[in-house]
Amino acid sequence: MTVESTGELGLIRLIRSAATRGRADVRTGIGDDCAVLAPGPGELLLATTDLLVEDVHFRRRYAGPGDVGWKAMAVNLSDIAAMGGRPRWALVALACPDSVSADEVDAFYAAALGLADEHEVSIVGGDTSLSPSGWIVNVSLLGTATRAVLRSTAQAGDLVAVTGSLGRSRAGLALLDGCDREPALDPAVRSEAVAAHLRPRPRVREGQWLAASGDVTAMIDLSDGLATDLGHVTRESRLRARVRLPDVPVAATARTIAAALNQDAWAWATGGGEDYELLLTCRRQVFDRLAEGLRQATGTPLTVVGEIVDGAAGVEFVDALGRAVAVAPGFEHFATGASRG
Amino acid sequence: MTVESTGELGLIRLIRSAATRGRADVRTGIGDDCAVLAPGPGELLLATTDLLVEDVHFRRRYAGPGDVGWKAMAVNLSDIAAMGGRPRWALVALACPDSVSADEVDAFYAAALGLADEHEVSIVGGDTSLSPSGWIVNVSLLGTATRAVLRSTAQAGDLVAVTGSLGRSRAGLALLDGCDREPALDPAVRSEAVAAHLRPRPRVREGQWLAASGDVTAMIDLSDGLATDLGHVTRESRLRARVRLPDVPVAATARTIAAALNQDAWAWATGGGEDYELLLTCRRQVFDRLAEGLRQATGTPLTVVGEIVDGAAGVEFVDALGRAVAVAPGFEHFATGASRG
Repeated sequence: MTVESTGELGLIRLIRSAATRGRADVRTGIGDDCAVLAPGPGELLLATTDLLVEDVHFRRRYAGPGDVGWKAMAVNLSDIAAMGGRPRWALVALACPDSVSADEVDAFYAAALGLADEHEVSIVGGDTSLSPSGWIVNVSLLGTATRAVLRSTAQAGDLVAVTGSLGRSRAGLALLDGCDREPALDPAVRSEAVAAHLRPRPRVREGQWLAASGDVTAMIDLSDGLATDLGHVTRESRLRARVRLPDVPVAATARTIAAALNQDAWAWATGGGEDYELLLTCRRQVFDRLAEGLRQATGTPLTVVGEIVDGAAGVEFVDALGRAVAVAPGFEHFATGASRG
Repeated sequence: MTVESTGELGLIRLIRSAATRGRADVRTGIGDDCAVLAPGPGELLLATTDLLVEDVHFRRRYAGPGDVGWKAMAVNLSDIAAMGGRPRWALVALACPDSVSADEVDAFYAAALGLADEHEVSIVGGDTSLSPSGWIVNVSLLGTATRAVLRSTAQAGDLVAVTGSLGRSRAGLALLDGCDREPALDPAVRSEAVAAHLRPRPRVREGQWLAASGDVTAMIDLSDGLATDLGHVTRESRLRARVRLPDVPVAATARTIAAALNQDAWAWATGGGEDYELLLTCRRQVFDRLAEGLRQATGTPLTVVGEIVDGAAGVEFVDALGRAVAVAPGFEHFATGASRG
């Protein structure tokens, strides 16, 4: 039996079974974007961690040290955003080979610090060491919240909506993997997609605004792709989701690049992952107010892609006529070799 | 310029310079055992992280998955102990090769959970992924404290003392490295030293008792060895330390093993590291009360090894007649290839 057959969910079950039973200071343990802790009578404490390993989560061929530092911070900020929290303090651990230059290490920290500063996050601790092969980065991020929005609280009849548009990150990865073999592409399109992949911008302000609205019933960030992440919501909420594929907001950039590379932009939007948009559920009657409020507060659009229905946990995709359509499976951690929790 | 010439201290300076300036919610950032955070008016929050990499921090030839899980938890508990805090919540991230079995992953978590449970710590989050080569573990640990004991607050004239005895962990490593080529050794001596290295027991109760006494002026855990860790205290406190080598409590086990292997037990005790005892400073007149109180509360002895004096930051070792003696340098992170923060 290999780790592949254990899978991330097996590990989660293993830990969940023993570690957090009956502790009043743990509101939500493993299984959401962040742990929700109650240190005392005041605000809730949010905690999340992500381990990024070279050649599993990124390739140094196209990701510079600054890109690695940025992304390690961004994926954790996105987890705090998904709970509607305020990110506060980060711990950054780095291991790299002894051939790495001081300038590269400097570039790593400068980018992580730059993004942290944008969100008023302090880097308060860390750990550094050698690595026998490749870069290894772990960022743990703490945040606070008066009320945390969970994955597990979607309701039957809720609408499912996403911020922004999807597929740009996977389009950027396709370009990076292709090593510039698409000369006809507009340089602006190319750089937008590559930036979406290497330097994603977590929806921290949007998450806070959405949580404060009181109208969001459940929320998660799109790290592993719409299909997989909405699957997490349905499993944690013990409900089912139906997504109308034509309503998924595929980024124009992704469509252009997919056409140039003869790829499927819809598969990128539903299964590509790493867009770090927010996926939420809300009551049908509040959606217009929510979308208009978010747009006014942050400029970010909110688009309905489907609904929560009764039934076995899972996501079904349908076409414009309501007929079931097959969609490439989303990203599963151990199964395909990476974790973008 | 390589990472080796940058060194851990260079990285620490780099982060400290920009990340935590002028933030009221950060009492102590990088440079102590834990970050000390002030989320609100209540208790302080402590946060620490350690990244352990196969073939840098441990070798799978002699460290089983359970040993790795235990130690990753133990080194973080020791950091909380060194501030006198109460450990509360852990985040555990694991990456391992896809050849690893589910039983091995299970053994890793079972050991980490077992030690966490002993200290009433909840594992509340984590991350799992593949690693292209070797095991990688990151544990981040959060704790609380009403008052945190820092490294930077030693006073000239203070005594320097350590809990327990030193050198057992390095003796255990010598045995593990030697692959059983010392048949004459008592099996009980051998297993005590090996356990000290593979499954260290952090001084959490001792740290809490010492902090609550109000008599400790500065404290640190002995992860990198007496010489290096006391050096940290002197640098952070802008003072100097003088250690009387004959007063260093070398573990009987370490002496026995050093004799059998024709090694220097004193070098193991002062430079070997990973004993995870506590080193503290206190006013001269409170020492007897402190040592007797600690012994009654926890059974753990406290031994004076030297004193804090005015002068340039650093540690000098002297013999019974007060003459300077050379001691092997302690453990420096990048310089020798590992970090045991």
